[in-house]
Amino acid sequence: MSLTVVGSVAFDALETPFGKRDKILGGAATHFGLSASFFTEVKAVGVVGGDFGDEEWAVFDRHHINTDDIEIVPDGKTFFWSGRYDYDMNTAHTLDTQLNVFETFEPKLSEHSKNSKLLFLANILPMLQKSVREQCPNAEFVAMDTMNFWITSMKDALIETIKVVDCIIINDAEARQLTDEPNIHKAAKAIMDLGLKAVVIKRGEYGATLFTKDNYFAAPAYPLESVFDPTGAGDTFAGGFMGYLAAHKEITEETLRRAMIYGSVMASFNVEKFGTERVDALDYPEINQRFKAFKQMTHFDDIPFEKASSAA
Amino acid sequence: MSLTVVGSVAFDALETPFGKRDKILGGAATHFGLSASFFTEVKAVGVVGGDFGDEEWAVFDRHHINTDDIEIVPDGKTFFWSGRYDYDMNTAHTLDTQLNVFETFEPKLSEHSKNSKLLFLANILPMLQKSVREQCPNAEFVAMDTMNFWITSMKDALIETIKVVDCIIINDAEARQLTDEPNIHKAAKAIMDLGLKAVVIKRGEYGATLFTKDNYFAAPAYPLESVFDPTGAGDTFAGGFMGYLAAHKEITEETLRRAMIYGSVMASFNVEKFGTERVDALDYPEINQRFKAFKQMTHFDDIPFEKASSAA
Repeated sequence: MSLTVVGSVAFDALETPFGKRDKILGGAATHFGLSASFFTEVKAVGVVGGDFGDEEWAVFDRHHINTDDIEIVPDGKTFFWSGRYDYDMNTAHTLDTQLNVFETFEPKLSEHSKNSKLLFLANILPMLQKSVREQCPNAEFVAMDTMNFWITSMKDALIETIKVVDCIIINDAEARQLTDEPNIHKAAKAIMDLGLKAVVIKRGEYGATLFTKDNYFAAPAYPLESVFDPTGAGDTFAGGFMGYLAAHKEITEETLRRAMIYGSVMASFNVEKFGTERVDALDYPEINQRFKAFKQMTHFDDIPFEKASSAA
Repeated sequence: MSLTVVGSVAFDALETPFGKRDKILGGAATHFGLSASFFTEVKAVGVVGGDFGDEEWAVFDRHHINTDDIEIVPDGKTFFWSGRYDYDMNTAHTLDTQLNVFETFEPKLSEHSKNSKLLFLANILPMLQKSVREQCPNAEFVAMDTMNFWITSMKDALIETIKVVDCIIINDAEARQLTDEPNIHKAAKAIMDLGLKAVVIKRGEYGATLFTKDNYFAAPAYPLESVFDPTGAGDTFAGGFMGYLAAHKEITEETLRRAMIYGSVMASFNVEKFGTERVDALDYPEINQRFKAFKQMTHFDDIPFEKASSAA
């Protein structure tokens, strides 16, 4: 199935305890698209300025990401975000945000993009997400991200947007904040009740969980001894998740579960180097080897305990 | 294989947002023993005062826990702990601790207890744990717990104790504190390097992870919508874990993994009611049904992605 992503394309400046980059390719649609491109053809919808150069386009081209719907504002500047991580890699400290051309971003979807069966609405203004979703009446599975800022500043609009999608992929703090519910399972159910088919809660180093109508699936995180740069991990997860689904004819509980694992696989690679560096250089044997590692680290035999067998 | 536990037997007074109990049966050896008793015969080593009554002994008797090595100090009082939990059930606020007869506890193991193949050293003074371990030269698999207080106040003695056991079962904050290592995987490896066969890290609502020499296993927590009373959850986990191992002739990666799940199963029941109430009333069909639920919520098919199949 075809897949479209709508979201930011950006330059990032990053500082972590392990190094520094002044201006590298970033943005939600970038990380998502790169990750999804290993599984399916992706159409990216976004906006960049005239400063977006050959080197950046080359990354998209290398992964056959369709960029026809990435608008170029020749006299504008690309969205720029600068952040710092300390040893606690869970929290990004924003140093600078320059929205630039992204401030007035109005996603313009070609017929080609509109007709995708799968659609991912990366973190942008909830009303924009809703408007994009409504431009794609044939989309069969629409997932969205959001952030704490929108939950605080426009919860009502956000909830109206959630009601028109099929799946939300957010982190646990956001799920709790959205529902005023400290228990994550109750929070997920409350979000499901808005009419979703699936709720994916990302829990950082603890993995990710999938809630569907009748099922619950817990995926661990890959046991990384060091996280080099967590920027884009969430979008990389979403890209693996949606990309994997797009590569299959049907979305079932089984494909959703494997999609959770492939999302986790891709996110685990993403954090191993700066920005897009690691995912850009990935190959299929590496991806499938790590998928196998996830199987290995969660498998146990389904042998019920029988008291009779306990004599020893 | 036979199993001995050495630890506290206590009275607890508990307050949670869901209710209150003034004086109920508690203690590490109690929670451990009760949980393990579903899998094997347990010998408990501890001390109580003259106030320990028929009702309390009846709980041990009901589960065929051997209490021959629970010393009774007729004119002493049983260890008493009083605590409160707020809606954040992760942190116990201690209101009162009266060590009473536990203050001078010197575990006295009969030959019977000493000859157990499996031994669990619940959270007591590290030097006492070491002395008990040395009294049991035939023990083939010895596991221990500890707490932040000992890590802070006598880390060297604690490390000497860890060096003579096979397995440690602690929570993630303790693992980090013990090793001064924020990354939990590095922390676990540092602890393994003290000479252990297995390190079990309990992560509360995120589950538990098992580190062995060549393997890593991640067990999720059971998705509970409400935790009624978390007191004893860790010891109940350890009881299910060690009890399950004791019910098998050999300790292998496979039995360790299923032991992790049975530990998680037992802990998930423990928190559903006050103190020992829920585990005391458990039956095998309930236990195996929840074990099956753990399998169900972690299972995914091991089907590697093939690019060729992605056309859609």
